[in-house]
Amino acid sequence: MQPIVDFILELEKLKAVTRKTRPLGQDRFENSAEHSWQIALLAASLAPHAAPGTDLSRVVAMLLVHDIGEIDTGDVLVYAATDWTAQKAAEAAAVRRIFGLLPEAQAAAFLALWQEFEDHATPEARFAHAADRAMPVLLNLANRGQSWRENGIGHAQVVRRVGPPIQAGCPALWDYLEARLDAAQREGWFGAE
Amino acid sequence: MQPIVDFILELEKLKAVTRKTRPLGQDRFENSAEHSWQIALLAASLAPHAAPGTDLSRVVAMLLVHDIGEIDTGDVLVYAATDWTAQKAAEAAAVRRIFGLLPEAQAAAFLALWQEFEDHATPEARFAHAADRAMPVLLNLANRGQSWRENGIGHAQVVRRVGPPIQAGCPALWDYLEARLDAAQREGWFGAE
Repeated sequence: MQPIVDFILELEKLKAVTRKTRPLGQDRFENSAEHSWQIALLAASLAPHAAPGTDLSRVVAMLLVHDIGEIDTGDVLVYAATDWTAQKAAEAAAVRRIFGLLPEAQAAAFLALWQEFEDHATPEARFAHAADRAMPVLLNLANRGQSWRENGIGHAQVVRRVGPPIQAGCPALWDYLEARLDAAQREGWFGAE
Repeated sequence: MQPIVDFILELEKLKAVTRKTRPLGQDRFENSAEHSWQIALLAASLAPHAAPGTDLSRVVAMLLVHDIGEIDTGDVLVYAATDWTAQKAAEAAAVRRIFGLLPEAQAAAFLALWQEFEDHATPEARFAHAADRAMPVLLNLANRGQSWRENGIGHAQVVRRVGPPIQAGCPALWDYLEARLDAAQREGWFGAE
């Protein structure tokens, strides 16, 4: 039992990893733990818009573990000009360390979920990515582009970076967002041209 | 798509519902959104200790939705001398309102999960309750009884209130906790005799 307890207490640290979005009505930054909860429910709520045969329970499980590597690396804004290969390698090392606290079978199960998400190759991984990418867009659409304005992000950057994965995983969601993003541009909610 | 978006944005409010435990290493109180994420992973990690045949994906789904009623009612400490029947009725009204934002089929699916958890009648619900009850105990064991001391909670109260549901849902976890709680009492980590 102790290895499971050690793992769960290690997860406490994800409650201290902050993102660039602020929860609606709060001044603080969102953390990656509460974000992971919310996108799991976003994916579950979007079930009727998943490709036929998609295993929603695996999507949910992937989303619950996909950010755990940030305990060691921190969260990086999806629009950042960073070395994404190095960032992903660091996250892979982090999840091997953290899942490695668990008994071997459970560590392997979580690592397989994490890798499936990273590989973008299954319908479940693509659907999970759509939920993950859509959530901060939905928050920005609800708070007049807070993180776009605070970080100098433009409409074209958003469309280019999150459009393809959302379109690939959940086309109906992208149809909705594309129209809302155009309206947001007319409202001036972006931080760059 | 708009009803799903309305529901997901309503969930923002659970990020502002505070519990009595503090995340390890932080001064603030934990919120019910990040707690829900963590207990879903606790249940998944405890899979080898679940009763044979337990559907872990339903346990995880239950844990992700079980606190959503707190958006309207707030969190009440499990040891509080409150009218629990009235509290549960208020939570039931709250989840009907909140899940009711969704299209009918998804609302019904979430409501069924929420009700299954409340009814304690299936192996999945009992396992979910064990994870939910164990998590604040694990946090208190890791931070010298922070919420027990701040709220005047004694060893006997903890054993009486959380022992039976944890024992019923995950006996191996209770065996572990019972010994740790005895050690905590010797350390003086409780807020009452």
